[in-house]
Amino acid sequence: MNFGIVVYVIGWVLILEGGFMLLPAATGAIYGEYGAMSIYLAVGSACAVIGFLLRLKKPVKRTFYAREGFVTVALSWIALSIAGALPFSLTGDIPSYVDALFEIISGFTTTGSSILPEVEALSHANLIWRSFSHWIGGMGVLVFVLAVLPMTGGSSLNLMKAESPGPSVGKLVPKIRRTALLLYRIYLAMTLVQIVIMLIGGMPLFDTLCLTFGTAGTGGFGVRSDSIAGYSDFLQNVITVFMFLFGVNFSFYYLLLIRKRDEALKMEEVRWYFGIYLTAVLLITVDLTRNGVQGSVLRHLQEAAFQTASIMTTTGYATPDFDMWPMSSRALLVLLMFIGACAGSTGGGIKVSRIVLYLKQIRRELRKQIHPRTVKVLHMDGKAMDMNMLHSCNVFLLAYFVIFAVSMIILTLDGFDLTTTFTAVAATINNIGPGLGKVGATGNFADFSVLSKFVMMFDMLAGRLEIMPMLVLFHPKAWRR
Amino acid sequence: MNFGIVVYVIGWVLILEGGFMLLPAATGAIYGEYGAMSIYLAVGSACAVIGFLLRLKKPVKRTFYAREGFVTVALSWIALSIAGALPFSLTGDIPSYVDALFEIISGFTTTGSSILPEVEALSHANLIWRSFSHWIGGMGVLVFVLAVLPMTGGSSLNLMKAESPGPSVGKLVPKIRRTALLLYRIYLAMTLVQIVIMLIGGMPLFDTLCLTFGTAGTGGFGVRSDSIAGYSDFLQNVITVFMFLFGVNFSFYYLLLIRKRDEALKMEEVRWYFGIYLTAVLLITVDLTRNGVQGSVLRHLQEAAFQTASIMTTTGYATPDFDMWPMSSRALLVLLMFIGACAGSTGGGIKVSRIVLYLKQIRRELRKQIHPRTVKVLHMDGKAMDMNMLHSCNVFLLAYFVIFAVSMIILTLDGFDLTTTFTAVAATINNIGPGLGKVGATGNFADFSVLSKFVMMFDMLAGRLEIMPMLVLFHPKAWRR
Repeated sequence: MNFGIVVYVIGWVLILEGGFMLLPAATGAIYGEYGAMSIYLAVGSACAVIGFLLRLKKPVKRTFYAREGFVTVALSWIALSIAGALPFSLTGDIPSYVDALFEIISGFTTTGSSILPEVEALSHANLIWRSFSHWIGGMGVLVFVLAVLPMTGGSSLNLMKAESPGPSVGKLVPKIRRTALLLYRIYLAMTLVQIVIMLIGGMPLFDTLCLTFGTAGTGGFGVRSDSIAGYSDFLQNVITVFMFLFGVNFSFYYLLLIRKRDEALKMEEVRWYFGIYLTAVLLITVDLTRNGVQGSVLRHLQEAAFQTASIMTTTGYATPDFDMWPMSSRALLVLLMFIGACAGSTGGGIKVSRIVLYLKQIRRELRKQIHPRTVKVLHMDGKAMDMNMLHSCNVFLLAYFVIFAVSMIILTLDGFDLTTTFTAVAATINNIGPGLGKVGATGNFADFSVLSKFVMMFDMLAGRLEIMPMLVLFHPKAWRR
Repeated sequence: MNFGIVVYVIGWVLILEGGFMLLPAATGAIYGEYGAMSIYLAVGSACAVIGFLLRLKKPVKRTFYAREGFVTVALSWIALSIAGALPFSLTGDIPSYVDALFEIISGFTTTGSSILPEVEALSHANLIWRSFSHWIGGMGVLVFVLAVLPMTGGSSLNLMKAESPGPSVGKLVPKIRRTALLLYRIYLAMTLVQIVIMLIGGMPLFDTLCLTFGTAGTGGFGVRSDSIAGYSDFLQNVITVFMFLFGVNFSFYYLLLIRKRDEALKMEEVRWYFGIYLTAVLLITVDLTRNGVQGSVLRHLQEAAFQTASIMTTTGYATPDFDMWPMSSRALLVLLMFIGACAGSTGGGIKVSRIVLYLKQIRRELRKQIHPRTVKVLHMDGKAMDMNMLHSCNVFLLAYFVIFAVSMIILTLDGFDLTTTFTAVAATINNIGPGLGKVGATGNFADFSVLSKFVMMFDMLAGRLEIMPMLVLFHPKAWRR
């Protein structure tokens, strides 16, 4: 294990975090929250100083092997969260540090599960930091580090691989730094477009910034207790569209940018994502109308489009209290929680591309049973999928279910009902935010025990980092020199 | 597709079923239920005649390829159920034929889910047929056909493979007919031992027969509405032990029989099965005591041992209403529903051996990430597992979850709560019987819609036949000549 490089990178991450804290500090200054402002400045400076010290000793070897990649990513995210939670506690807005840690991990992992009964009680500085953490975590801090820092070439791919959502980043340009920069540019551009449209739609600047960060990172933290139900239809529809867009594989935009329109439109994952989304919206609209839910068909369509995008991209904003919806629509949404968004997007879940690979494997297995001699290679986007990659993709699901089962068992010790417990795990491991029952759109996660909260923090990190980095941390061999 | 052989085998299955119906007919005669007796005699004769006609035309080729194996098994089970449900309807005990079909499929697949609010209302003939169906389905009708019929040698393995629970039957003697005979002998011997002990324990003969059939097949149908809560502690403990024993891989008993004691004791699946069972019993005992559930620790231990064996072996008998247990114990039982019993036993679920292979794959993947160059082959019972077999084992789980998800979505249209819907699917696809909520130990499946009932019938068959045979039926290529 090359500890030098791990510490070096964590140093950079902390310096960056110190820089990021200037936004809430400035917000505090604008709103006259001088206490919060000074806390953000102090914590930010401390992060920068510690980060600077950590990266004083330049590592001898600058190469990353897979295991360094995993450990660095996991520890960076943990360091980021430990520091990021401090202002919540120090300002007194979230007195318990465990709760503050839960809240910021929920932020960075773009989950959006909250322990707060009433967000309005937070200062503006804390509110914007909470939402900004979604934006930071959405594309990934280490991708950012890679984009701005002079790291050594090819082997830093392992760092990016460990942090990017989805089975493969192979689509994008081979030069890792250019890729990282490009991803951030697309991300930034789309964020800016959304901000402009929301401002035109009449949303105040502060709300616009917070909600755009939450949409872009597919996070879900809002600035009002009723989430975004209080905004105009136009604004809600804008958010629907952007949630959907940020759930698309960024390779799609990249291909569009380099004028490979045909290739972009042929991306199987994006087609499936689109197909699943449309089907779900239609089914839910029919179900709402059939069950006589209040409102016109158009209203149902709008609500279905919003809620489906919110759940499928794992954002977690809510307009209607979907706990009130018919059981069939709610169950469909629970199913979509697991499918999630595209790989290479800011969304969570199992990812559409994995689901497609699973379905293709089932079809192939059936064919193999019927005609044992025809060995068929699986293709995705016209490329043959190799057996090792499929195997890793399957093992991901196995590990996912083991973590899910163990988490559920621990959470049940708190004695909540099965729906609450099940959807609490589903909402955190898939980085969605709200679940059903006590953790539904109008509920929160405050009442769980400290143990359960730590389990869910682990689940959020495991979900965002796609499990392996978090599991590697617990493997003794990962720590050998 | 070799249709000749498919029809031929189904003919034999129907003849056998006609024979099996002599038991309920005799029971009817003993209890003076002459109406029921004549119905069983009539239906049994009809089965025999139709079966005889179907096998008149001897098939030219007697070889089975995988697809013939799957189609034959699936269609045989469907034919068996269609005929087996008739007496329930004709006697008027279960007026709706759909309900009768549900009940008998639940019987043959050893599920034990019932649409009856009160079993006491059934005639003795129907009660024993219902329980006997567990015994018939437990070891498999086609295994029976293989055991008693002169079929051609090696290629009939495909028939047995398609019907036996678990990833492989390779353990047992290569000669298929001897294997089948041996399995039935072990099965019969263990059944007889249980009958004798229960009679000694003071249970009436009729109850003994029914409950032993239910235990041996790990089915779960009882003869009283309170399941087995009304019997003495001794009898309940006997049932606990035998449920556990029938959940063990029969290869274990086979190895013991041929005096390979060491090899038997080293079987990894059996060790894990034992370990999981013991751990669960201890955890539940602690949980019951901790939560102040009524009764002494010894009482809790006894109840935990019973309920864990009942769920893990997918039998589904109930003593205490486990809906009243603390949430954590209930959640643990729900988890055990999915794990299930050993492969090569009469139990259902995903099977312990698959779970072990999944865990081993996760460990290997972790190691691979830490040391990418060490390629490690997985071993089970000292034998290297080949990649294709692991792949099929993983695809099984993928198909399992797809069926689970689709079933759940359809069931939610009935508007029951999430717990009821989720555990109804879990209880049927894993061949357990009762779930939680409305389908809990004191509830039943009568209130579901006809569509949902057909979905659950499919799930029960898919669970018992391990998915592939049922899916192959829907593949157009399976029907080509």
